[in-house]
This record gives sequence, C-alpha cells and structure tokens, in this order.
Amino acid sequence: MKQDNKKSQINIGLIGLGTIGAGTARVLIEKAESFSWQIGCPLVLKRAADTNPERINVLKGGQAIFSTSAADVLNDPDIDIVVELIGGEHPAVDFMKEALSKGKWVVTANKNVISRHGYDLLKIAQEHSVDIFFSASVGGGIPLIDPLRNQMIANKINTIYAIINGTTNYILTNMAKSEMDLPTALKEAQEQGFAEANPASDVEGEDAAYKIAILATLGFHTRVHPDNVYREGITRLTSRDFRYAQELGYIIKLLAITKEVNNSIEVRVHPTFITSDMLLSKVDGVFNAIQIEGDLIGKTLFYGRGAGAAPTSSNVAGDIIHAAHNIYTGKGPSLGVKFGTPKQIKPVSEIVTRYYIRMNVEDKPGVLAQITRVLGESDISISSVIQKLADEEKQTAEIVIMTHPAKESFVQQALKQMAELPVVKEIGNFIRVES
Amino acid sequence: MKQDNKKSQINIGLIGLGTIGAGTARVLIEKAESFSWQIGCPLVLKRAADTNPERINVLKGGQAIFSTSAADVLNDPDIDIVVELIGGEHPAVDFMKEALSKGKWVVTANKNVISRHGYDLLKIAQEHSVDIFFSASVGGGIPLIDPLRNQMIANKINTIYAIINGTTNYILTNMAKSEMDLPTALKEAQEQGFAEANPASDVEGEDAAYKIAILATLGFHTRVHPDNVYREGITRLTSRDFRYAQELGYIIKLLAITKEVNNSIEVRVHPTFITSDMLLSKVDGVFNAIQIEGDLIGKTLFYGRGAGAAPTSSNVAGDIIHAAHNIYTGKGPSLGVKFGTPKQIKPVSEIVTRYYIRMNVEDKPGVLAQITRVLGESDISISSVIQKLADEEKQTAEIVIMTHPAKESFVQQALKQMAELPVVKEIGNFIRVES
Repeated sequence: MKQDNKKSQINIGLIGLGTIGAGTARVLIEKAESFSWQIGCPLVLKRAADTNPERINVLKGGQAIFSTSAADVLNDPDIDIVVELIGGEHPAVDFMKEALSKGKWVVTANKNVISRHGYDLLKIAQEHSVDIFFSASVGGGIPLIDPLRNQMIANKINTIYAIINGTTNYILTNMAKSEMDLPTALKEAQEQGFAEANPASDVEGEDAAYKIAILATLGFHTRVHPDNVYREGITRLTSRDFRYAQELGYIIKLLAITKEVNNSIEVRVHPTFITSDMLLSKVDGVFNAIQIEGDLIGKTLFYGRGAGAAPTSSNVAGDIIHAAHNIYTGKGPSLGVKFGTPKQIKPVSEIVTRYYIRMNVEDKPGVLAQITRVLGESDISISSVIQKLADEEKQTAEIVIMTHPAKESFVQQALKQMAELPVVKEIGNFIRVES
Repeated sequence: MKQDNKKSQINIGLIGLGTIGAGTARVLIEKAESFSWQIGCPLVLKRAADTNPERINVLKGGQAIFSTSAADVLNDPDIDIVVELIGGEHPAVDFMKEALSKGKWVVTANKNVISRHGYDLLKIAQEHSVDIFFSASVGGGIPLIDPLRNQMIANKINTIYAIINGTTNYILTNMAKSEMDLPTALKEAQEQGFAEANPASDVEGEDAAYKIAILATLGFHTRVHPDNVYREGITRLTSRDFRYAQELGYIIKLLAITKEVNNSIEVRVHPTFITSDMLLSKVDGVFNAIQIEGDLIGKTLFYGRGAGAAPTSSNVAGDIIHAAHNIYTGKGPSLGVKFGTPKQIKPVSEIVTRYYIRMNVEDKPGVLAQITRVLGESDISISSVIQKLADEEKQTAEIVIMTHPAKESFVQQALKQMAELPVVKEIGNFIRVES
C-alpha cells in the first residue's frame, strides 16, 4: 500500500556507460536488493544512455531500457535521479541543468563541470527543491566531500594538502624509488594502464586543479574557479631532484594545496618537497590522500583509491542511496553548500613558503658568495646549502639551496638575478617546500 | 516571521561539563553565529547541567541556564537537542532514553553506552521520529561513523583494522622508538597527560573493545556487544618483542580488528604485528587511524586525533548541526542503521592468522627439532626462525618463530605442548600477525 507522500519505487537514469558508468550500472543491478533494503523501497536502474550502441551489453541482467540518446533519460517523468557519468564539460553540464530544472536529483563524478559550474548547479537545484551530489568528483572512492560538507562543518578550515592525481603519484613514486627519469616512468605508467596515451591533463596538473578548486570552494565557502588555481605540472622534475630530496629528508609529491590566511585564499598545484615524517609522504602509487586541517579537528587525513571503476562507484552509489533516501522519505535537499562573502584569491607571487633551488655553477672560489649575496639582497635567508662537484671536466659544480620562508615574488626576482650571474650556468630547478 | 512548520530557533541542552562538555560548550558559544548561518536559524545553547556547581564558569559569555540537575535539561520542553557528555553507562543511558522518549534528538560521545545500548537507543529514537548521533564515540574528531553509516553504504565491508586508543598507541610508539620498557613508557605517558592515573581501561583494551563493537555493528549490520569482543591488552609486551619486530620488518600496534568471513564475524583487540609498509604502521603517538576495506572501495583509511576536547567537539558539533538542520527543515531522522539477520561471532579459537612466538630454550643441539616437531604435528607451518644466544652463562637461547596462517586453537595447543618440553624454559610471548 502506497503511503500518502511516499514513492513506491525510486527510478534511476544513467547517462554514460564508459568505465565508471558501466561499473556503476553493474553495482546498481547486482546490489539492487541490498540498496533497496537500505532505502526502504525498490531502487531501480530504469534507463541508461550512451552514444555507443554496443554498450547496451553492460545492462545485462537488469531491467534498464537502453538508448543512444540522453534525451530519453531526461524526458522520462518517472526518473527521479539522473546519474551523469559521461565526463567533460559539454554536454554534461547541459544535461545536469536540464535534469535539475525538471525536478530530478543529480549525481555526478564530473570534476570539470562541478569545479566550473558547481555554484550555478547548486542554485538551480535549490530553486527546484532537489539536490546535486558529487562525492566521486574528488578522490574517486574516498568518502571526502560529504565529511567536508557536513561532519567537519563546525571547523574553520585552515589548510588542505592533497595528493589527488593517481597518475602523477604513481610516476613520482617510481621516480623516487627506482631512480627512473620522467619519460621512462611515464612510459611505464602508460604500459600499466595508469596513464593515458595523452597524459597532459594529469601530468600538467589540470586534473588536480579541478579537484582542489572544488575542495577550496567547499572548505572556504567561497567560489574558486579552476582558472584561479596556479598550477605547475611534474615535467620539470629530474632524477637529480629526487636524489637531493632524499638526501635532505624530503619526498617530492604533486600537491594540490589550498589555505586561508587572513581572509585571502591560496590555491595551487605544483611539485612540492614535504618532509618524510608527514603521513602524506607515505602515500605511494595510484593512491590518493587528502589532509585537512581545521581549527577544532587539527590535522585529519583521508586515504584511498582515487580512481578506478569500483572505488568510484562506491561514492557514486553512496550518493544515489543518499538521494534516494531523501526522495523516499520526502525530505528534500540535505544541508546545502553555504557561500559567504567572496574571498580574495592570492596571486602566487604573494605566497610565502620555503624553496629548494638547484643550479649549475662554475666551480671556482667566490661563487657561493655571489649567490648568497643575491639571496640576501632579496630578503631570502638560507637554511642549508649543499655543494657538489658535478662535472670535473667542465669545472662546474651543483649547488642546492634550501631557503627559510620567503615571499615568492622575491624568490622569482632572485632567480632571475642569479641566472644572469656569469658564474651561474643554469638554474636547474626550484621547488616549493611545505611542512 | 515564523514559517508554517519551521522552528525559529533550535535549543540545545548539554549534560556534562567535563573536558569534552566544556570544550563543546565553548564551541557552541563562540561559534554560534557561524553555526546559525549554516543551519538557517539561531542555534542556542539554552541549558547546561553538571553535578559540579563550579562548572558554571564554562558558560561565560553565553546565555545558557546552568543547573546541577540533568532533569532541568530533560524537562525543558523547549530543548530540541540533548547533548550527553558525562560518559559512563549510568545515568548517561537513562538520560538518553528519557530524552529520546520525549521526542528530543540526542548527540553523544559515549562509546560505552552506544556499544552496549546503541540498538535500543536507535529503536526508541525511531519510535519517536527523532535520531541519535554518536560520531565522537569512535576516533574522537575523525569523521568516521558518518561515512561508514552513509557514504560507504554501497559496500559490503570486509575488514576494519583500527588504531583507536591514543594512550596505548602513544606508549607503543615510545617503546618502539626509544626501546623503553612498558612501565617506563606508561609513566611517561601519565606525566604527559596521555594516560590516566588508573590506565586499566586503555591498557587492557577495554576502551578499544567498546569502539570496535560499534564499528562492527555499523559495518556488518548486526548487533555486536562489547562483551563479544575478544581482547588482550598491551601488558605482556616487552622491549625484546619490539626489537624482533623491527628485525623482521614489522611494527607492533594495539589493533582493533573486525572481519566478516562467510557470514561469521571476527571481532578482537590485541597487540598485532603489522608489516612496516602498511600505512597503519606509520600512525604514531596519540593519533588514531581506521582502515576499512569494502568490496567496491578497496582499502580506505581515516586518520586524525582520537581524543582531546577540541577534536572531539568537532564531531559533537558536526552532529549537533546535522540534527539542528534536520529539525529546522522538519526532515526527521537520517538514513538509519539497518540491522539484518544476526550474524554469528566467531570465538577467537576459530580464527586463522599468522603468529609470532618467542621462547627461551636450552642452548643445545636438537632443541629446534623438538619445537618444530610439535608445530608440525599441530598443522602449523613455519615461515621463519631466528635463534639467538640469549644468556651465555645460563646456556639458554632465544628462539623467535613466525608461522604461516594457522588456526588459533592449534597454536594454543602447540604452545601448551611446547611449554611442557623440558628444553623449553619459557614461552616469552606470542603475538598475532596481520597484513
């Protein structure tokens, strides 16, 4: 017997049957009984769409109606929840807007759309008394977005340090452990299926930038667009940098970082030296980890698989069950994302951190004095220096400097001045240091 | 203007102003504006009770009415949420039952009550269309219970490995790093304020048993009472065990473990050898970490401060805001805890794991052969043996054996038989191994 306001069944429409979509479809079909038990009424994958007609095979054993057109999902008035898993900006964002506008709940794993259009989507959802969940958009299977949105809400978030790109972490782990150079490590990752044929989005930090923009938005209750994220990829790293890092007690990770300092926000992605006693430094291979520091909680860390069909489907299905339960009990949206007074995003030139600087110099007396004078004049103090004879024949040495905290613009200026010194052959690399 | 069904203000009554209660009161007073903004209406600490009249001082700057009687909180019809932070079984459980029966929502950090009476409390809550939240009962500030109850709900949980007692982890970290013996390490922990004057509940694993009973109940959807948890404390550990652990590539942690194997549940707390490549092995000092493995998510880990007023208040206040938002929007309870068919709890004699065995033997030929014969006859195969000359004068040696997976009852039987061998002076220790 149907109760007054209650639905007797919750229907899902899934758009996109690629790796994640297919994994989610399998989970919805195979675990239907368990999910229905959790929610209190049947949860049914009623429709699925993919432009590739062969993907109908994914739906075997279920009752879903397949279509090559997303419109068939969006136009079905019986669909309560639209699950968008095609990825990319368009048409994904258009599908989501249409679904929300029609009063359907939306679940997505789309970091690109959420980081660019999350604010608008949340607004449309609110206007139609529905909700949009996007737990799988950051950290794959790691339950992270929901704790940040809800359970940790009493905190003022101070910093987030995140390893949120599995491909680059896999590559950097190999470079650190096997002394591989970048091209070799990348090739190995591609052979293992951990890097795409065109790895640019991962290797250049774009993927991580989307994700940290989402975390910064949620953590600081202000809009952070991915275009506001300063980013450097891993392409300038060499095996020499890994050797020095180890010697100095550091690990190199591609960190996505966001901090709030005096109502102004830093948000950046770049290779980072972190000390080897930080738990983050132990996060190896394709795993992800996100360290969040709040005023009450102190440092907390979430670790797990940041990609892959099964882990991602854990978060997607968790969101679907959450939405379905809210719909079934007639609850309406959960505690929403609150946006406060917009906060300023600090340009990278304004940040203050420590730096690792590696350079090739002529091996003759007085060189170090010239370099340290430049640094001193730029108000940068040195915490340690390593000088090594790099090439006896060419009479060049390699100098590695670790600085105390200094303003980025001063460091950039000093780097330029040092590069112009006749005794300096080349600035090998400079890498920011966090602890 | 008050809307139809909506409350214009949510009132909190707090029972218990000890360390955690006082911390929570401060947070509720100091962050009232921010919390009210999040929820959409004022969140007010209206009443607080503690048997110690001096604790009224905690409430300075707020508007709470102090009382030495919890009844004043429970009998106030304007109180929407009762926050129980006195700890211990009685009268805490009685207060919570009364509050729920009166249609008030309850937030608690009480591991003792939740592990013993959680099922009944959830039932009473359901009958009165309210809810009880207990995020701070396990892992202090770590957002763990909510993800396990909700975001990870699509998973079939396979195993939970948890470092959930900060006191013992602090002691074991010191024993591993400074080669302290247990009495010294305990004394140091007491001096630092990380162990109580009477440390029995921590050191003997009782505290961890409460917590793993809660996690097993939530993870496996079946009732697990703390009396069903097999537990051994850390009191038999010596510095020799730590030395051998290091030599063999292991770290010793007091692990709380629960697993579901073939519909039957293991739930136990004991010192455990874990390999030094596990992230759990890097969790040092008073920090807690909980590794959960599910069929979709794979291994995920939550890390943070497991105790202390500020971290605990993060979870308590998170729960309060969650409850307040549900009350304000007239939503009723969240997705509840579902209980399935009761599952059998496996006696420890039935578990299968690997073992570290340390013993003192006479230093003469043939001893090892006698010992390995006993193990072989009990169907226990050996993975490695270390034999050391322990005491030249007494002509005794120390043997350390690592076994392959074996049934606990067989190992216990073999230990008894080995202890009876004339060449065996003493079974020094045996410790379970997990990886």
